[in-house]
Amino acid sequence: MLKGYNLIGFKESAKGDKHLTAYSPVQQEYLPETFCIATSNEVNDAVALAVTAFEEYRHCTAEQKAVFLETIATEIVALGDDLINRAMQETGLPEARLLGERGRTTGQLKLFADQLREGSWVEAVIDEALPERKPLPRADLRKMLVPLGPVVVFGASNFPFAFSTAGGDTASALAAGNPVIVKAHESHLGTNEMMATVIKNAAIKCNMPEGVFSFLIGEGPITGMQLVKHPGIKAIGFTGSFKAGMAIYKAAINEREVPIPVYAEMSSINPVLILPQQIKAASGALAAQLAGSITLGVGQFCTNPGLIFLINDENTEAFITELKEKLAAAPAGIMLNKNICNNYYQTKNKAANENGVTVLYEGENVSIAAKGSAALLKVIAADFIKNPQLQNEIFGPASLIILCADQLEMLKALQSLHGQLTGTVMGNSDDLNNFQNCIIELSLKVGRLIYNAVPTGVEVCHAMVHGGPFPATTDARSTSVGADAIKRFARPFCWQDCPQGLLPLALKDDNPLKIMRKINGEFRR
Amino acid sequence: MLKGYNLIGFKESAKGDKHLTAYSPVQQEYLPETFCIATSNEVNDAVALAVTAFEEYRHCTAEQKAVFLETIATEIVALGDDLINRAMQETGLPEARLLGERGRTTGQLKLFADQLREGSWVEAVIDEALPERKPLPRADLRKMLVPLGPVVVFGASNFPFAFSTAGGDTASALAAGNPVIVKAHESHLGTNEMMATVIKNAAIKCNMPEGVFSFLIGEGPITGMQLVKHPGIKAIGFTGSFKAGMAIYKAAINEREVPIPVYAEMSSINPVLILPQQIKAASGALAAQLAGSITLGVGQFCTNPGLIFLINDENTEAFITELKEKLAAAPAGIMLNKNICNNYYQTKNKAANENGVTVLYEGENVSIAAKGSAALLKVIAADFIKNPQLQNEIFGPASLIILCADQLEMLKALQSLHGQLTGTVMGNSDDLNNFQNCIIELSLKVGRLIYNAVPTGVEVCHAMVHGGPFPATTDARSTSVGADAIKRFARPFCWQDCPQGLLPLALKDDNPLKIMRKINGEFRR
Repeated sequence: MLKGYNLIGFKESAKGDKHLTAYSPVQQEYLPETFCIATSNEVNDAVALAVTAFEEYRHCTAEQKAVFLETIATEIVALGDDLINRAMQETGLPEARLLGERGRTTGQLKLFADQLREGSWVEAVIDEALPERKPLPRADLRKMLVPLGPVVVFGASNFPFAFSTAGGDTASALAAGNPVIVKAHESHLGTNEMMATVIKNAAIKCNMPEGVFSFLIGEGPITGMQLVKHPGIKAIGFTGSFKAGMAIYKAAINEREVPIPVYAEMSSINPVLILPQQIKAASGALAAQLAGSITLGVGQFCTNPGLIFLINDENTEAFITELKEKLAAAPAGIMLNKNICNNYYQTKNKAANENGVTVLYEGENVSIAAKGSAALLKVIAADFIKNPQLQNEIFGPASLIILCADQLEMLKALQSLHGQLTGTVMGNSDDLNNFQNCIIELSLKVGRLIYNAVPTGVEVCHAMVHGGPFPATTDARSTSVGADAIKRFARPFCWQDCPQGLLPLALKDDNPLKIMRKINGEFRR
Repeated sequence: MLKGYNLIGFKESAKGDKHLTAYSPVQQEYLPETFCIATSNEVNDAVALAVTAFEEYRHCTAEQKAVFLETIATEIVALGDDLINRAMQETGLPEARLLGERGRTTGQLKLFADQLREGSWVEAVIDEALPERKPLPRADLRKMLVPLGPVVVFGASNFPFAFSTAGGDTASALAAGNPVIVKAHESHLGTNEMMATVIKNAAIKCNMPEGVFSFLIGEGPITGMQLVKHPGIKAIGFTGSFKAGMAIYKAAINEREVPIPVYAEMSSINPVLILPQQIKAASGALAAQLAGSITLGVGQFCTNPGLIFLINDENTEAFITELKEKLAAAPAGIMLNKNICNNYYQTKNKAANENGVTVLYEGENVSIAAKGSAALLKVIAADFIKNPQLQNEIFGPASLIILCADQLEMLKALQSLHGQLTGTVMGNSDDLNNFQNCIIELSLKVGRLIYNAVPTGVEVCHAMVHGGPFPATTDARSTSVGADAIKRFARPFCWQDCPQGLLPLALKDDNPLKIMRKINGEFRR
């Protein structure tokens, strides 16, 4: 069933003579199918089609785009067990997780479809003409968000559905009116092809212009970089490693005549402050909750809690012991691919060898079985503050305890913290009052602040911020999850004294779309 | 009265031994006052104060910040003739223009004050908890925009009030809750000191934390770059040349551990399409209107119409003749400074020597009197398309006619166009229908599309977009003029399951600020 092709618009294309082979971490072997790496010409053809498709696609109605997104969602579900089985084989993720992730993926396609139909996301603003104003009349000025143009999406390994070919970047870029070219992630090649074919078929079914979607197989430094540097590309969505994200970000600014926005979600170690009274009151429950979050999905979440800040008092030792026991009880799990698995043990061991770091618990190295086992490290705050190496992400089920002598030291440790997607505070109401300065400091470093819950689990909704200060992302002014992700791929555009007949529907006097608008400074529908 | 100091927070400071001297293009001589270049330590002190001030300033209420901005506006007016006279002397701009610009400057301070009081600019979004949801409950999620931290503002020479020390960047960054450090523009040093002193005094009067505003004298490559690279700085606002803007933009990304957003407005030549039937109907009026815009303020506007696209037909020659006559009738005017004046003639002469360019009219070179005289150049579209040098900005009262053989050639010329702040179309309704493809192409290249009016004149209002694709700006997703300029200096932040008492006012259940919010996807006040 899998053919190993690229999709250049609606055409299956495999002109190259280099191939990638899918690998199964479950079976620990290469799978039979090979996937044809796009040639440089195929890359150019995909961009040329996207540029042409943009001329038509950006004028599609909200309803047309909504139906397109919903059709993708329907067709994903119609893939049934084939999709789930292939993804299980390629990623080692369990069925229940993948079923949930599929629901999340179709859910976010539908969220954007709903948002398109509701229509207010374009942020329509109208200032009516004031021809009598003195000393100068005011022109009629109207603005709204318009799409940027062809967007390249680099999927992530750890969410083969929700952050990959048909994931949130693709959905939000398409919703905003931009053609999308996906650079397939090498870690789940067959899954990608199934998803890409679904999007292509949905585009045909919905009479979308050819080139609204293309799908290319290749390697980041070659295929990926050709896309990043191509003048036809207007924005990038990326989820992955710090190294790859930074290479794309820098190339998009330094190696193009016209720099473009890069939304790269890269690296986050998601600090958790566990405050003294809460530990005293609920040590065991906290340890169980936290261990569950650390080991969830074999620690392969961008919101995995990698740092645990504790005040060293009479209850700390018992809490750490409970956390160790919970982690020791968690079974090792198959990781997404061999590289990730080997890299997990390497980065963990490197951290363990840093100055002042103690290993509190460490499961057996089962990389031979492609599995990651949990680990718990400890360092005192003074050593943490001195050593930025301890803020390198360990992608897997490991966490580092930062033991702080007192609140002031916790504050200092938080001041030394790099940017993060999330920060979490576990504390009762006295704790939250007492540690206000630490919580405020934490909030400067994160995109989302969580009270008394774990950071893993990112709701797809209107109020989500899945973003945060560098190096968590390259653009803290954006979110890659939730309704506002659409705004990353749009820019404001102003019409001055435009005849009514030539205005987009969102800006016409009679508000035919019935959207929320700001008119002369007042919100009106 | 002028003291030549820097302002490090509330303190007048002049520790350096290097000085800049103010120059008057009107008198063509250096003015008596000297201005002390900030030392590296003074720069560091200003940033340290800003970092500390941010801790307090970002928690100021909207009302406190609004009063602060209004106090600045009041105190600017209170400077009276002293300010206007100094600015006239330093910039050569006439009194009426400066009075107008002062009104614009105080007006935008008041606009941001109004926006703070209204409060909805923070884009509050609430998704309430769904504890009963299956398979997983939903947490309570609330987000809004929060300030970024200390902002550095580089003022422009051409708007000594509205885009300089107390201009739109400063006003919007302060409104969003960020301390501001202004790097004074060398071209109007005394004006800057007066404005900076006003802001400092307003900060004291309004009990703002010291460091909410600092003011540094120096040169871009040294003082400016130290600020750009300083880890305490979180964003940059800049208006000026392409070269300086790009140096800042690249440094902010490549020479910092943590890249920061740069909003640089740099270079725009503001194409105007003058369509055939409109020329036939109103040749003389169009020529007068356009000549007025080209020579307004001696052509020293970022929205100056630098390119005029015409279809070559039987009415073209007569229109060009009328335009030449109108330009010839415009008196040469004093330019902002010697460099700008010399650079104007140089870049104009360079363009005149490019392949295929004809000089249709050129006033006398009166750079000896620091004056710029108008010029009109012409090139055929085929030569324009081949030569990107013809898209270099000529900062002054010159414009280049692009003569197109037909509509298809006009379309091709527009396809070759770089990013611009504005695009203008002059046409009757038939023209607008006939040239739809050209107008659509133009719209891809600009931030604001103007029908049958001139691009000069940028309204400070809610619907303005003063921004546009690169190289007009480094961030087409933003506007530097109008209410939404505030959003450049903020980022979304999400609170998950935060106790009511710890939420900011904008996100509390009972909506004490009575702002417009999106709750579970619906707009509500």
